[in-house]
Amino acid sequence: MPDPIYDVIAIGNAIVDVMAPCEDVEIAALGLAKGGMTLVDTARAKELYDAMGPAREISGGSAANTLAGLAALGAKCAFIGQVADDQLGEVFAHDIRAGGIAFDTAARAGDPPTARCLIFVTPDGQRTMNTFLGASQFLPAQALDENAIAAASVLYLEGYLWDPEEPRKAMRRAIAAARNAGRKVAFTLSDAFVISRHGDDFRALIADGQIDILFANEHELAALTGLDDFQAGLMQLAANVPTVVVTRSEHGAHAVSGGEHAHVPAQPIDKVVDTTGAGDLFAAGFLFGHVRGRPLEDCLTLGAICAAEVISHYGARPEADLNMLVAANVG
Amino acid sequence: MPDPIYDVIAIGNAIVDVMAPCEDVEIAALGLAKGGMTLVDTARAKELYDAMGPAREISGGSAANTLAGLAALGAKCAFIGQVADDQLGEVFAHDIRAGGIAFDTAARAGDPPTARCLIFVTPDGQRTMNTFLGASQFLPAQALDENAIAAASVLYLEGYLWDPEEPRKAMRRAIAAARNAGRKVAFTLSDAFVISRHGDDFRALIADGQIDILFANEHELAALTGLDDFQAGLMQLAANVPTVVVTRSEHGAHAVSGGEHAHVPAQPIDKVVDTTGAGDLFAAGFLFGHVRGRPLEDCLTLGAICAAEVISHYGARPEADLNMLVAANVG
Repeated sequence: MPDPIYDVIAIGNAIVDVMAPCEDVEIAALGLAKGGMTLVDTARAKELYDAMGPAREISGGSAANTLAGLAALGAKCAFIGQVADDQLGEVFAHDIRAGGIAFDTAARAGDPPTARCLIFVTPDGQRTMNTFLGASQFLPAQALDENAIAAASVLYLEGYLWDPEEPRKAMRRAIAAARNAGRKVAFTLSDAFVISRHGDDFRALIADGQIDILFANEHELAALTGLDDFQAGLMQLAANVPTVVVTRSEHGAHAVSGGEHAHVPAQPIDKVVDTTGAGDLFAAGFLFGHVRGRPLEDCLTLGAICAAEVISHYGARPEADLNMLVAANVG
Repeated sequence: MPDPIYDVIAIGNAIVDVMAPCEDVEIAALGLAKGGMTLVDTARAKELYDAMGPAREISGGSAANTLAGLAALGAKCAFIGQVADDQLGEVFAHDIRAGGIAFDTAARAGDPPTARCLIFVTPDGQRTMNTFLGASQFLPAQALDENAIAAASVLYLEGYLWDPEEPRKAMRRAIAAARNAGRKVAFTLSDAFVISRHGDDFRALIADGQIDILFANEHELAALTGLDDFQAGLMQLAANVPTVVVTRSEHGAHAVSGGEHAHVPAQPIDKVVDTTGAGDLFAAGFLFGHVRGRPLEDCLTLGAICAAEVISHYGARPEADLNMLVAANVG
């Protein structure tokens, strides 16, 4: 097996986040499910945008955010995702390349436009996401560079992208390409709604030994396993997945890998400004530790540090120098 | 004269800011004039964007920023400016309308695209702006709603927009419409480069008594008057302009109006994050006090409060509740 060129290659939605603060009463008035992610069509996206206050645009997308964190820590990364040939597509492509991440998926001509996520952020820092998938859901299997996938230590897949048909096919092909090359496959469950629609697929992949590293939060863990007991759910997954990582927001995170259990508390922060990207950046820190061969508890601590940084400001991409934060906390 | 419908109507560039942090060495390597504003063409805009780190997009434009501040304080405002029929144009239009500002200028079809300003922010918070004017410079005189101008207490004009030919004609027509309706005309000099190209126009407007309220910083004051001595320059302008307001960054601001002189210090802030919009928001606070009939020193204090808020975060539009800040400081 040749040495990998990339530490992590990821397939995910190519999304620009459109973010604005709002009050809790507005969340209720707009009929939004606070804290969740909802897919919206063109008409609903327009309705919500019209109701939104002055906003800012910051590149997002779950797996892309994770790569932004990994690249900021010094990992070599590549991204596969579909933008349209429009201004928001240029914004997304600029931001990911400017972060030092290889991105070669050709922009898609014509409608629909580049994906955007309308994010309402309440005073408690909680984000409520409304995603217009646009071009992102048309990632074709042909867009995969199987040589690049075979050349990455880890293939990282975003559960959100399992929902649309074309990218799901592409991701199945990518898993086969990675496994044939002897690489690891990491998967994040993303959201309970994805599990409600595709839980059987995920359970089959896990039972079949296709997933090496699985990321979930405690709600996704319960939804996937059907077990309300946290430890029981964790152990059920750990029986079939070499490395399982489960985050519990302010209660920290747990991992089970090769029979070893580890737990870390959440990192203290002054104020939660915007939780968008917390799970994505946790995965970034953990994966960075993993590909660098760090002890399991260090991997969790790296995840907690990166998550704490991203929730201390608006936007799901890191702003502070993650390397300095890590050096100060983990060494 | 009928009661005004708007407190302030403004004509300005319709720009989306593209902002990223950078180090001082990058400013030098890119050949940028730190702290200044430079107009760039398509090729240079691409070159600079390619060199820029991961960015965020926030609506900007000098006069539009001023209106955003005024509207946040509770003033009734309208904006006239030219966007293209593209995604960044939609972003600009959304953000200004979401701030409660009337905006009816029709988007312009075809090339060039909506204006953007590539802003590099150094660790000291200083912004270095590179403006691609795009559609903004094609604001036609026909786009003016002279009834709306006649219905506003103050017409506010941005010196930046004096540079391109079509908007300059439009602004001359707007000045006539406002004066014929017995309204006040406020003007901001914007930048030394505008004065170097159009100083004669500005001096003629002033000598002719066309300007009621003039905003400048100390460098623009010196460039316009040719006087290095601050007080001498201030008094020269005050001889022909009913209200002159001059900002001096961390040294506070001065105003002369109807023979009265006033000065306020800068408001203390913890950290200057990004100076973009400081002058624009100073003008917002001052104009708000002015249209509400506040004493001259209060008008300056309102300006200083709004400027301090906007330089404490990224972006040139206010984020905090300006009314609460003002109530806590001026009452």
